[in-house]
Amino acid sequence: MVGTESALVADVVVPACAAVGIAFALWQWFVVSKAKASPNVNVEDVGAHGEEEEGAGDGHDAVVRCAEIQSAISVGANSFLFTEYKYLAAFTATFAVVIFLLLGSVHLFSTGSQPCQHTTIGRTRTCKPALANAAFTAAAFLLGAATSAVSVHLAMRIATYANARTTLEARRGIAAAFAMAFRSGAAAGFLMASLVLLVLYLTVKAFSGVYYGDDGDREGLYGSVVGYGLGASSSAMFGRVAGGIYTKAVVVGGELVGKVERDVPEDDPRNPAVIAGMVGDNVGGIAGVGSDLLGSYAESTCAAMFAASISSSSGGDFPAPAAVARYPLLIGAAGLVVCLVTTLLATADVFCSFKAETVRSVARALTVLMTVAALAVSFVALPANFTVYDFGQVKQVKSWHMFFCVAIGLWAGLAIGISTDYFTSNTYSPVQDVADSCRTGAATNVIFGLALGYKSVMAPVLAVAVSLYVGFRLASIYGVAVAALGMLSTVATRLAIVAYGPISDNAAGIAKMAGMSRRIRQRTAAGNTNAAIGKGFTAGSAALVSLALLGAFVSRAGVTTGASVVNPKVSVGLLVGAALPYWLSAMTIKSGDIAALKVVEEVRRQFNTIPGLMEGSASAEPDYARCVRVATGASIREMVWPGALMLLAPLVAGTFFGVTTLAGLLVGAMVSGVQISISGSNSGGAWVNARNYIEAVESEHARSLGPKGSDLHKAAVIGDNIGDPLKDTSGPSINILIKLMAVESLVFAPFFAAHGGLVFK
Amino acid sequence: MVGTESALVADVVVPACAAVGIAFALWQWFVVSKAKASPNVNVEDVGAHGEEEEGAGDGHDAVVRCAEIQSAISVGANSFLFTEYKYLAAFTATFAVVIFLLLGSVHLFSTGSQPCQHTTIGRTRTCKPALANAAFTAAAFLLGAATSAVSVHLAMRIATYANARTTLEARRGIAAAFAMAFRSGAAAGFLMASLVLLVLYLTVKAFSGVYYGDDGDREGLYGSVVGYGLGASSSAMFGRVAGGIYTKAVVVGGELVGKVERDVPEDDPRNPAVIAGMVGDNVGGIAGVGSDLLGSYAESTCAAMFAASISSSSGGDFPAPAAVARYPLLIGAAGLVVCLVTTLLATADVFCSFKAETVRSVARALTVLMTVAALAVSFVALPANFTVYDFGQVKQVKSWHMFFCVAIGLWAGLAIGISTDYFTSNTYSPVQDVADSCRTGAATNVIFGLALGYKSVMAPVLAVAVSLYVGFRLASIYGVAVAALGMLSTVATRLAIVAYGPISDNAAGIAKMAGMSRRIRQRTAAGNTNAAIGKGFTAGSAALVSLALLGAFVSRAGVTTGASVVNPKVSVGLLVGAALPYWLSAMTIKSGDIAALKVVEEVRRQFNTIPGLMEGSASAEPDYARCVRVATGASIREMVWPGALMLLAPLVAGTFFGVTTLAGLLVGAMVSGVQISISGSNSGGAWVNARNYIEAVESEHARSLGPKGSDLHKAAVIGDNIGDPLKDTSGPSINILIKLMAVESLVFAPFFAAHGGLVFK
Repeated sequence: MVGTESALVADVVVPACAAVGIAFALWQWFVVSKAKASPNVNVEDVGAHGEEEEGAGDGHDAVVRCAEIQSAISVGANSFLFTEYKYLAAFTATFAVVIFLLLGSVHLFSTGSQPCQHTTIGRTRTCKPALANAAFTAAAFLLGAATSAVSVHLAMRIATYANARTTLEARRGIAAAFAMAFRSGAAAGFLMASLVLLVLYLTVKAFSGVYYGDDGDREGLYGSVVGYGLGASSSAMFGRVAGGIYTKAVVVGGELVGKVERDVPEDDPRNPAVIAGMVGDNVGGIAGVGSDLLGSYAESTCAAMFAASISSSSGGDFPAPAAVARYPLLIGAAGLVVCLVTTLLATADVFCSFKAETVRSVARALTVLMTVAALAVSFVALPANFTVYDFGQVKQVKSWHMFFCVAIGLWAGLAIGISTDYFTSNTYSPVQDVADSCRTGAATNVIFGLALGYKSVMAPVLAVAVSLYVGFRLASIYGVAVAALGMLSTVATRLAIVAYGPISDNAAGIAKMAGMSRRIRQRTAAGNTNAAIGKGFTAGSAALVSLALLGAFVSRAGVTTGASVVNPKVSVGLLVGAALPYWLSAMTIKSGDIAALKVVEEVRRQFNTIPGLMEGSASAEPDYARCVRVATGASIREMVWPGALMLLAPLVAGTFFGVTTLAGLLVGAMVSGVQISISGSNSGGAWVNARNYIEAVESEHARSLGPKGSDLHKAAVIGDNIGDPLKDTSGPSINILIKLMAVESLVFAPFFAAHGGLVFK
Repeated sequence: MVGTESALVADVVVPACAAVGIAFALWQWFVVSKAKASPNVNVEDVGAHGEEEEGAGDGHDAVVRCAEIQSAISVGANSFLFTEYKYLAAFTATFAVVIFLLLGSVHLFSTGSQPCQHTTIGRTRTCKPALANAAFTAAAFLLGAATSAVSVHLAMRIATYANARTTLEARRGIAAAFAMAFRSGAAAGFLMASLVLLVLYLTVKAFSGVYYGDDGDREGLYGSVVGYGLGASSSAMFGRVAGGIYTKAVVVGGELVGKVERDVPEDDPRNPAVIAGMVGDNVGGIAGVGSDLLGSYAESTCAAMFAASISSSSGGDFPAPAAVARYPLLIGAAGLVVCLVTTLLATADVFCSFKAETVRSVARALTVLMTVAALAVSFVALPANFTVYDFGQVKQVKSWHMFFCVAIGLWAGLAIGISTDYFTSNTYSPVQDVADSCRTGAATNVIFGLALGYKSVMAPVLAVAVSLYVGFRLASIYGVAVAALGMLSTVATRLAIVAYGPISDNAAGIAKMAGMSRRIRQRTAAGNTNAAIGKGFTAGSAALVSLALLGAFVSRAGVTTGASVVNPKVSVGLLVGAALPYWLSAMTIKSGDIAALKVVEEVRRQFNTIPGLMEGSASAEPDYARCVRVATGASIREMVWPGALMLLAPLVAGTFFGVTTLAGLLVGAMVSGVQISISGSNSGGAWVNARNYIEAVESEHARSLGPKGSDLHKAAVIGDNIGDPLKDTSGPSINILIKLMAVESLVFAPFFAAHGGLVFK
């Protein structure tokens, strides 16, 4: 079923699946909204439903307090996003103009058609003018940034709406609390994934309908659509880098004044930074990780579609038809449905026992189901034989080859998850060894944690390498892009898990802040065990996505030959590129601490100037919103230099040193960055879980490591504090670096090819 | 002056310069030996010469104690080397057989001549059989390993002979002590550099005289001589990796029991690990850094000669004559003379005021003089025009091009030194900021130190990248190799500085252990300010050397095309290669701590079983030698896995995945490794100097950071302890990794090209 029918199928299936995803999200949100976070749920009613009676301080007053806190968090989150999006809007508007000007200059703003770049020898086709591509790329860029921003905003709304409800549901028992958090996470996750897919689909439809035509200049069409990936990635830069700095700044700043100077316990309502901290949970988790994953998802889909488009006129017996370009969207749609089915099936199971083992089995089930779905989609949507572009050559591909590409990415993602779990969960020996090393002090703890992180890179790197090799062997760049897409095809569930974390963290914080009983606090604290697993996956998928983008860039820029590793232009790029993640880390690793100083000043100021605040008198309210504003401003300021590095490095390299050096730079940054990112996030994950292991005292061994406050425990805390910026700021920034540089290079490839290389030409 | 005359010049100049270097070293040793480390230098005599009278406890008994301690250190150092060389001998013997068998198998052990690989199209020349090359390569390998081992052994002899003499000279004043240490360092440094150059020269002469002929199969000759580099590098692996682990183990082990458990001060004679620790100074400095630099020196010379040899039949109008292949040896010889002259000129100056500024100006003077010498050698020894091999093409080179290649490497080395100095010396703000960050605890100190290390990679990487680009542009692989050689041409002075460190460290330790006066101890403690600078240089030069070796490997293995960064075979190699330095670090960073446990056991055992030891009774002698033996055994054991990784990775990659993937693996390991090595050694250098800065209390700012023993100081100590394995074990191991893998690949290139790639073929 190829050709017109397949086009119809895609036109029905993709929007339908996205609509189902959105509907599911809205339904979950509706269910969540039925739980009222206001005091008119009376206690008898709760008692009638709940298995257990409520404790002291969980009554009417607590509910009022919860509602107030929820509202403060929600206001704070909106305030953060409003400020961030103000800068994002200014940035994207400016950068859209840059895109238009640079790409428009490729044929000197000529409005005439041009011969296509990737056309079989002997057949000359004309493609749309570069000026038109420039305009559509800028439009796609704006759409990508806006979609990512809106999705994240909605997800944050859901999360900050659900947190207090989760706290209140905890009065009914742990299952009810978990159900609430899980539903809200699912609502947020499916909404984000569906929206990004839907808008991407609509962009393709609109561009082809308005200008490019259904079977016209596919190269120009999908080349412009790549702008969508750049937009989503730019939004992710704000979310991930500024968000990461914000999160770190409020935690460190709040603690420094609160715990250290003023002896105020954690999550105490008197601390002006407490709401900012809870906003930070959402900012780091949803705005940060969420926008990062959405960016990867959009980029891998764009890269795959672009690779298909340049294959359509690459010659061979069966040049890839439109179905091949639509296939990535169908895989995304199938992924949504598989995630939905798995969520529905798993719900019963997961709701009853929230255990790490359950999460692992869900991940396995998801992978198996998606493999089956990919098999079906590959046979239905693809022609049995087609050819793809392979750096100036053509490669014969069969439909089942593409199934293997999706599958290898998918299973590599699972392998990365398992490896990360092994190295960062305190149920396994690596973290327990790190905890044990605290016996000889903080230095040993740090050394053992670093060694663990270094060791943990090999398995994910091998998984990425195998995916790359298999994808490339089967279908060249298109295969690599599809493998990356396969790894990201279950993104909806991953996003749901990502959103679940801050909701339950917030719920526990609200319970504490509202002075609810210990039982309620414990029930809400099922917490965020998956954070480290998610981080490993994010880094691995970023590497694979950037490899796919790199292949597309090399094809588009025409660097098919000469990019040999011993070509000095390439080696220079490799060397300097490999240094970029280090330079970026040097900035971002300290930026949280620097931004924290501003928070410290503000918190001190409030403690000093608001009378009665320290004593906790009812009339003295800290100015929570101002603390959020201060931290937001500081984090945006700290983002300027890292952001400039990410955005300017490819532009400078391409413009002055040409596409060959730029290719080297991208590869260098990727191969070096993926290691430092994975090792940093796994070291960080191991340190925090080693600390948790010691604090939780759940085994004979953990008991022998001594109580909270001992020297051994202090050593563990030092490790945790060192790990924080590695796993929350510098590591994630590197993922953005390698993806953003690659997608930016792909977008600007025609410009660099035409006018680049001023120095090395 | 080309052709025969130039050959005669080389035959005179190279051995003459080497002989002068050796003579100078022996003269210095003779001067040193005139100072007696025995009590028959009477006190009146000392008083007559010295500017100051001696303090309490500096008399006859102290001299006897010094002589005893020196003898114990000397015995310990010999014991370490004896054990290490036992394993080295077994390893090299086995590996020589492997070399012979694998390279012999290239043409299935045929004794017939073969057509040459790098021959102009149209002209067929025959080269010597692969079997002969196999035998000569194995012989060169054995010679390289033996020369490095013997040189290091002699240097250790000098150093352990001079340490107590330096202590005793300190009674005459600081200038006398410094002169003693400086002379001994020069003796050790010039002896090592001259011996390695001389034996390399003799190897070339012998191989061509015995078999290859003066103008015969130059490809086979210099291809076999590359084995010398592999041998020197293998010896460096033992010196650097086992040596690094040993050093860390004895320091940590001695401190853990001595200071922590038993409350025995540092360098107290009762601690059984104290002698082992002083042996460790020599092992880490001379056996470690020395053999590493010697390996780089030998490798860059071999790579340059090899690149010249394949140029000799590469076609073009002026195929590179024998003079081009001899040029690297002449540059080495000129370097020896320049170092000698600079040492003689600088002596007066340096002896009077030992300041960091003096060392810096010596480095600058050395660079300027060597530039002049390189200019002269290039015009005298090279033909005005010649062509070199450029990946299947030829490149026109003029003699002054080669001067620029030497100069760029030389000045890049200076730039790396300046950058390292800036980031690791506590006279500049970066280290002072790290010291300041201790105010907020150990975690901030670690984060700031890591950020400093990350930031510090950019300048050295740019220096290497520029050298690479210039070298390559001017004279392809030959140019890169000559640039690497240029960077290493002043190796004799670098080795002298390297040897100076342990001598003065030991002298200070001996003074303390012998109970000499505080004044003497201060005079001997001018200490090792250049360690960090040397480390940055070692890493940068390792990167450039491995790039040169890589180019030679690619040419020899015939991977001229297809090594594109987007070829999946290459990308897979790049990704996995970039993970190797992390894997190696994961092993080596902990290995010091693991070996330390054995030392701890031994020290505890001696304290528990030797009666009166703890009380310091005269009859109770700790068994120093046994402690050395235990630490040596443990460090050799800990070297097994890292060593296996380094040696097997290229063999496995080449045999199973082929030369293209191997090229990717080498590049990946190099670009990732150089960053982690430089950042690790600079972070470590910054932490130790931040601690020194706080302890020395020499400025208003330093005074504000509080006294020894404060929380702030404890935070600084934690940073220092974390930095130790980074700068002394894992960083240096990575330098060995990237060089050893590259030279090993170059040696085995014919084997991989003939029989490799079992999986990816």
